[in-house]
Amino acid sequence: MHTPILDGITDVARLRDLEERLLPDLAQEVRSEMIDAVSRTGGHLGAGLGVVELTIAIHYVFQTPHDRLIWDVGHQCYPHKILTGRRDRIRTLRQEGGLSGFTKRTESEFDPFGAAHSSTSISAGLGMVEAARLQDIPRHVISVIGDGAMSAGMAYEAMNNAGSLNARQIVILNDNDMSIAPPTGAMSAYLARLASGSTYMGIRDLGKRLTAYLGRRMDRAITRAVEHARGYVTGGTLFEELGFYHIGPIDGHDLPTLLAVLRNVRDNMSGPVLIHCVTQKGKGYAPAEQAADKYHGVSRFDVITGAQAKPKPNAPSYTKVFGESLVQEGREDDRIVAITAAMPSGTGVDIFEKEFPDRTYDVGIAEQHAVTFAAGMAADGMKPYAAIYSTFLQRAYDQVVHDVAIQKLPVRFPIDRAGFVGADGATHAGSFDVAFLACLPGFVVMAAADEAELKHMVRTSAAYDEGPIAFRYPRGEGVGVELPERGEVLEIGKGRVLREGSKIAILSLGTRLKEALLAAEELESYGLPATVADARFAKPLDRELVSRLAREHEVLITVEEGSVGGFGSHVLQYLAENGLLDGGLKVRPLVMPDAFVDQAKPERMYELAGLDRAGIVRAALLALGLDAAKPVDLRA
Amino acid sequence: MHTPILDGITDVARLRDLEERLLPDLAQEVRSEMIDAVSRTGGHLGAGLGVVELTIAIHYVFQTPHDRLIWDVGHQCYPHKILTGRRDRIRTLRQEGGLSGFTKRTESEFDPFGAAHSSTSISAGLGMVEAARLQDIPRHVISVIGDGAMSAGMAYEAMNNAGSLNARQIVILNDNDMSIAPPTGAMSAYLARLASGSTYMGIRDLGKRLTAYLGRRMDRAITRAVEHARGYVTGGTLFEELGFYHIGPIDGHDLPTLLAVLRNVRDNMSGPVLIHCVTQKGKGYAPAEQAADKYHGVSRFDVITGAQAKPKPNAPSYTKVFGESLVQEGREDDRIVAITAAMPSGTGVDIFEKEFPDRTYDVGIAEQHAVTFAAGMAADGMKPYAAIYSTFLQRAYDQVVHDVAIQKLPVRFPIDRAGFVGADGATHAGSFDVAFLACLPGFVVMAAADEAELKHMVRTSAAYDEGPIAFRYPRGEGVGVELPERGEVLEIGKGRVLREGSKIAILSLGTRLKEALLAAEELESYGLPATVADARFAKPLDRELVSRLAREHEVLITVEEGSVGGFGSHVLQYLAENGLLDGGLKVRPLVMPDAFVDQAKPERMYELAGLDRAGIVRAALLALGLDAAKPVDLRA
Repeated sequence: MHTPILDGITDVARLRDLEERLLPDLAQEVRSEMIDAVSRTGGHLGAGLGVVELTIAIHYVFQTPHDRLIWDVGHQCYPHKILTGRRDRIRTLRQEGGLSGFTKRTESEFDPFGAAHSSTSISAGLGMVEAARLQDIPRHVISVIGDGAMSAGMAYEAMNNAGSLNARQIVILNDNDMSIAPPTGAMSAYLARLASGSTYMGIRDLGKRLTAYLGRRMDRAITRAVEHARGYVTGGTLFEELGFYHIGPIDGHDLPTLLAVLRNVRDNMSGPVLIHCVTQKGKGYAPAEQAADKYHGVSRFDVITGAQAKPKPNAPSYTKVFGESLVQEGREDDRIVAITAAMPSGTGVDIFEKEFPDRTYDVGIAEQHAVTFAAGMAADGMKPYAAIYSTFLQRAYDQVVHDVAIQKLPVRFPIDRAGFVGADGATHAGSFDVAFLACLPGFVVMAAADEAELKHMVRTSAAYDEGPIAFRYPRGEGVGVELPERGEVLEIGKGRVLREGSKIAILSLGTRLKEALLAAEELESYGLPATVADARFAKPLDRELVSRLAREHEVLITVEEGSVGGFGSHVLQYLAENGLLDGGLKVRPLVMPDAFVDQAKPERMYELAGLDRAGIVRAALLALGLDAAKPVDLRA
Repeated sequence: MHTPILDGITDVARLRDLEERLLPDLAQEVRSEMIDAVSRTGGHLGAGLGVVELTIAIHYVFQTPHDRLIWDVGHQCYPHKILTGRRDRIRTLRQEGGLSGFTKRTESEFDPFGAAHSSTSISAGLGMVEAARLQDIPRHVISVIGDGAMSAGMAYEAMNNAGSLNARQIVILNDNDMSIAPPTGAMSAYLARLASGSTYMGIRDLGKRLTAYLGRRMDRAITRAVEHARGYVTGGTLFEELGFYHIGPIDGHDLPTLLAVLRNVRDNMSGPVLIHCVTQKGKGYAPAEQAADKYHGVSRFDVITGAQAKPKPNAPSYTKVFGESLVQEGREDDRIVAITAAMPSGTGVDIFEKEFPDRTYDVGIAEQHAVTFAAGMAADGMKPYAAIYSTFLQRAYDQVVHDVAIQKLPVRFPIDRAGFVGADGATHAGSFDVAFLACLPGFVVMAAADEAELKHMVRTSAAYDEGPIAFRYPRGEGVGVELPERGEVLEIGKGRVLREGSKIAILSLGTRLKEALLAAEELESYGLPATVADARFAKPLDRELVSRLAREHEVLITVEEGSVGGFGSHVLQYLAENGLLDGGLKVRPLVMPDAFVDQAKPERMYELAGLDRAGIVRAALLALGLDAAKPVDLRA
């Protein structure tokens, strides 16, 4: 790889010293570097390729890091990382100890506000604008946000506020013409209208065109009438109506135009400005440009052919098992509908959509709306599945509480990405869902121990109509158990015992069950017979099972892939309230650590968290006052 | 009171039988009835008075309850309740066992979707439209939403979705010209522009006016050109750009116009329609019309004079203590700013605003934005206080996790209305905040035991700059303790012991401390010496204190005004992890019940929850195996 210009950009000052005419060549070198890096690490490719020129232009015109640049979501920030002192580590992306796949404050002063979830950048940027104003710091703040992220209400809330404050904020709308899924909202259609040059020119030049038609004499009166209509009533574009000065659409790969517009804004702005920039996702790498998903997120791949190295799975993913099970249930009951917030393939809702397009809703990046929309459907007799990742369900927490739980509406919540998520790190981990759902009165909260259990839970949730019901499952492949033809209806609030032992009880919720069984085997080999049970339900708790485990064992270990406040806490609360701890039961609740865990391989994360076989064995031995470091054989 | 027409409206069928010309008189009677009822019960007055005609018109034109009518927030629903079979109970509003102050599904089939939090009605309505479509049920769905509620992103998400689905949904924008606070967003200013007749007419008749000016010959060409500009680019109003057919503004007190428009929409709609209706909050009751807050929420009052019977408080409210303390700290540190989501007076932010208008932000009903806006400020050196009620903080949970906690940004969260809230019932209770915040790594979570403690916590949070910090306090008056001149900086993670005893330890978090002390006195009188401690911090836990209490007592009772998963769960987790339960400590965590509790007097709620003196004593006696029903005297 030959990157002579990029090699000279050791910091942004060097970039700014570069002659303007060399910038397009620099862009090509950044692209090569990025393609090579991602071909080795995997990650988000298409989004970064689409903003190479934009990234260069912003750093060239603005005084980053003094001026604040905030990338919405942050998955498009690889070129930004390459240009801001992180090129030497770019091949550690998403690896343990390496660079994050998103922007991150602790990683660089060029990341003034980290991200990973969508649509936060305008709010954060507005906070920075006001912080600068109050502290009398001359500073520009630039938020770059994608067209998809504009479907989230939060972006609208922020613009609504910025417009009324008349804040000196720059928003760059990165409209990347992405067509991975059908347009997911009216806004998307609106942006497409704006971006189509001809109609855009229509408004821009309406006065002129009327003049040409009607003759010179009428010029000013008509122009004024049209301006009146635009400025005072329809206010031009939607963005102008919210108080933003709107520039564009402009070509986001045309460096001279980008530089001119950014300089103009930098030097002349007095209030909020929105620059509508049209870019192409995957730009400059043919396999990405041609792929349906523009190489949104990729595995390692061959740079020449673009072929991705997807490892052959050992078992179907939980996502796929969910999607296919929902199709089965959907065939039996036409009241079942599926709802996704802009994640059709990530959630497996796309599988349902193929068979039931009319019963599938992609509402855009709009989790709040998704949940209350589902509640409305449930109120009128449908069986909605609001399929939202654990971490994104946080976006709709009040809707879950206020619209679903308080009204006891039977909305189904399939919760994918529960627990650790590996390379996506802390921002995407699903750590808190059991804690924030199981505290809600009347909520049923399940966790699947394996993919067969997931099938049962899909079926169970379809059959259950008395109130809200959630079931969580992790990212990735199942454990490889045989799948039943169709799931069974589980008894609500009943767990199951997988093996019996007299000394130690391990009560697992979710997919750590496999490790619990391995731990029990190891403990048995030390002469410590262990019972293993799968709770299935965090709520309602299987009180009979919990009581029996507590009464009949010296040690009770709970295991879950979730934070404190969740399953273990509910077990402890029940035990304490009922005096089941009074006899000196050695109870040890194992939970995810009280820390935001950076990206790593999942196995490594389990090991560090003590949520694997070894961790469970250690907890049991320590509870019994045994030395966990030395092999034990109590039978000897 | 003379209400001859209303007396005949025993159900909505009778209303529809009424001659149209009698409807204005009916409106007056409904007003009288409502004013009389609220004068006795207190509640939301201004909002209901503003929608009397609208309520009548909707029920007159549409076939409720078959057609679905959803009131956003629901605080304007008293006329609706009067007309839909609940007149006989209207004087039980907000009382224990009486009518809810909001819409509620379990109360009436005329309340197809309950509310209390803002901006949910379009999402729920859209769900119902789709449920009807999929089930082939011919049905109209009407959502009535206020202009304030339109500042929430959720409303935008729903419109964005409705527009793209081309759903047959009716949204009535109840623009009630409310000026309790300055306009809180660009949308508000935009609506004002639309509502001002002259500019509105400007667009409506632009074609005509141009025609008049230019002469007949040019008519069609110009009209077409203007229409082109409107329809394809600027798209008319913002609502039209989102795909809604936009009607109005119309006068929401003009019954003939309302009826004509509603009938037209009912009979001719084919996609989403927004009817922009201008109403007057407090309409028809002079004291309300003249009051600055239009009698938004009132105590019992004298109908003739309008004078409200506000009971003289015994102690300052927590809200006021917070506001005044923040002013004190604001004088010492000009980096302190206050942020509210449309609740300046409810949160006490208005007190801060009086002295520091430039450092106060009312962002509208936009909790998501509020929190990330605060995070942006914190990232750039300010000390933001995001003052949001416990129940509304649920709206911004992901922003708290993703933008604040993961980045360890020092945003301060004063959490008012934590715990039971009395007459507002389950939807406004602050039950879950400790559960959903204390599970977050690095979060400091405090609860004030009294108003002096609250002062300390305001000061402590101002001094603490290492990460997010929250402090919760209840609705209502303090306990009457003496207030220090200024708060002290508390040591993070340290509780305090208020009295020592050898048998029982009561560890309280928050304002139940007073009851804990009373319980200890009672227990002492039975010969059961009790220690009482105030934890102050749910996180980080005072491990030394918890350990000592566990080791030195036979019984440990935790007390908090929050759900399972919160403080008690963290104490149990710590005790279990460290083997402190292995000796048979009798631990009893007292929490709010696992039920959504309807409105009642707070004292009654505490009693039912067992969170008062008697409940704590009972828990201690039962833990010791004593009969809690009989007086005990172990000293005898």
